[in-house]
Amino acid sequence: MRDKTLVIGAVMYPGFEMLDMFGPLEMFSLVTCCPVQIVMIAQDDKPVSTAMGQSPGGGPAVTPDATFVTAPAADILLVPGGFGTLAELENSVLLGYLRQAASEARLVCTVCTGSVLLAKAGALKGRRATSNKQFFALTQMAEADVDWVESARWVEHGKYFTSSGVSAGMDMSLAVINRLFGAEEAEAVASVAEYTWHRDAASDPFTADLNKAARQMGLV
Amino acid sequence: MRDKTLVIGAVMYPGFEMLDMFGPLEMFSLVTCCPVQIVMIAQDDKPVSTAMGQSPGGGPAVTPDATFVTAPAADILLVPGGFGTLAELENSVLLGYLRQAASEARLVCTVCTGSVLLAKAGALKGRRATSNKQFFALTQMAEADVDWVESARWVEHGKYFTSSGVSAGMDMSLAVINRLFGAEEAEAVASVAEYTWHRDAASDPFTADLNKAARQMGLV
Repeated sequence: MRDKTLVIGAVMYPGFEMLDMFGPLEMFSLVTCCPVQIVMIAQDDKPVSTAMGQSPGGGPAVTPDATFVTAPAADILLVPGGFGTLAELENSVLLGYLRQAASEARLVCTVCTGSVLLAKAGALKGRRATSNKQFFALTQMAEADVDWVESARWVEHGKYFTSSGVSAGMDMSLAVINRLFGAEEAEAVASVAEYTWHRDAASDPFTADLNKAARQMGLV
Repeated sequence: MRDKTLVIGAVMYPGFEMLDMFGPLEMFSLVTCCPVQIVMIAQDDKPVSTAMGQSPGGGPAVTPDATFVTAPAADILLVPGGFGTLAELENSVLLGYLRQAASEARLVCTVCTGSVLLAKAGALKGRRATSNKQFFALTQMAEADVDWVESARWVEHGKYFTSSGVSAGMDMSLAVINRLFGAEEAEAVASVAEYTWHRDAASDPFTADLNKAARQMGLV
């Protein structure tokens, strides 16, 4: 697939986390062995605000390129997490889109609590997956039959890549590039981004703070 | 300043690099010891496209909150790099804004080739600074009296923080949080972002690839 354009479908909702989204998109944008197209996808065509701290919105707003209706099938579907996740767990339009888009995509990637949305959409049934460490208890809100892995930087199960919180999405993305195009391409991308790639999916120093922020916010 | 709102002025131009911008903004957005406001600033009020690979544009577009004329004075002025930098070296409106905004800001941060723009604007005269490693030769295009440091993850000189390429902006931002609010706050932000903070400004593994991409593109 080195000559074909790699289409990244990046799913936005109010209060998605900036680095969950733009860490992976940065890595994918630096792939040089094939053309890359990023499509920012949202429920409608209005700019979507990112999360600011623990507020689901108020951060920089990003312009959609397509809606859930007009978006093309993606080679890689990217679902970020963020403080907006909680409200979206009740959004049947988003969940319906995720279910359909995940089934059509070649690979599906989530960062942080994005995996909770994908699970709630029914797309992670019977699979291993991980999520944000300080909000790990939120995985139970998906009410889904998922084998949640507490200690992992990211988890690969078939075409599904789910990563731990925020920064972990960058390591997962390099693993995706490694699977699609090989280690040399992944290493070249990491080098141009001046990023020290954490290559061991099983090594997760942040499990030590499991549910810390969720407890502070009274969510568990 | 723990009760006062921390205002981040984030300067956009066509073809800025996604992670140069949203890595630092993620870290600043997670500060909890004071309110934080991010103001996305651009020359006019139209959405600004990020870089895609080596193309100065074509990436996701971000909505400005203010223009060079209406932007408030920033506590932290953030200037990202990216493939759009080259064209902006000839943009006297942007350079004039950077010169004025840098003089008014409490702290000024650049990522990647953002330091070349700041130098060209005359704001780094007589200071130590660093820049992207694979495009380090572009520092000469600033035609400015700057003590360019080849090997550094980031450089602090007075109120100026300049970082190496792309990912280095996250380490620099944590150093900024450390200076403003102490190590405990910086460590808490890194932990919530599940980011392994590279704390040693002098340690720079990417100097080994000095000017590699610039040579491949025939720029040096």
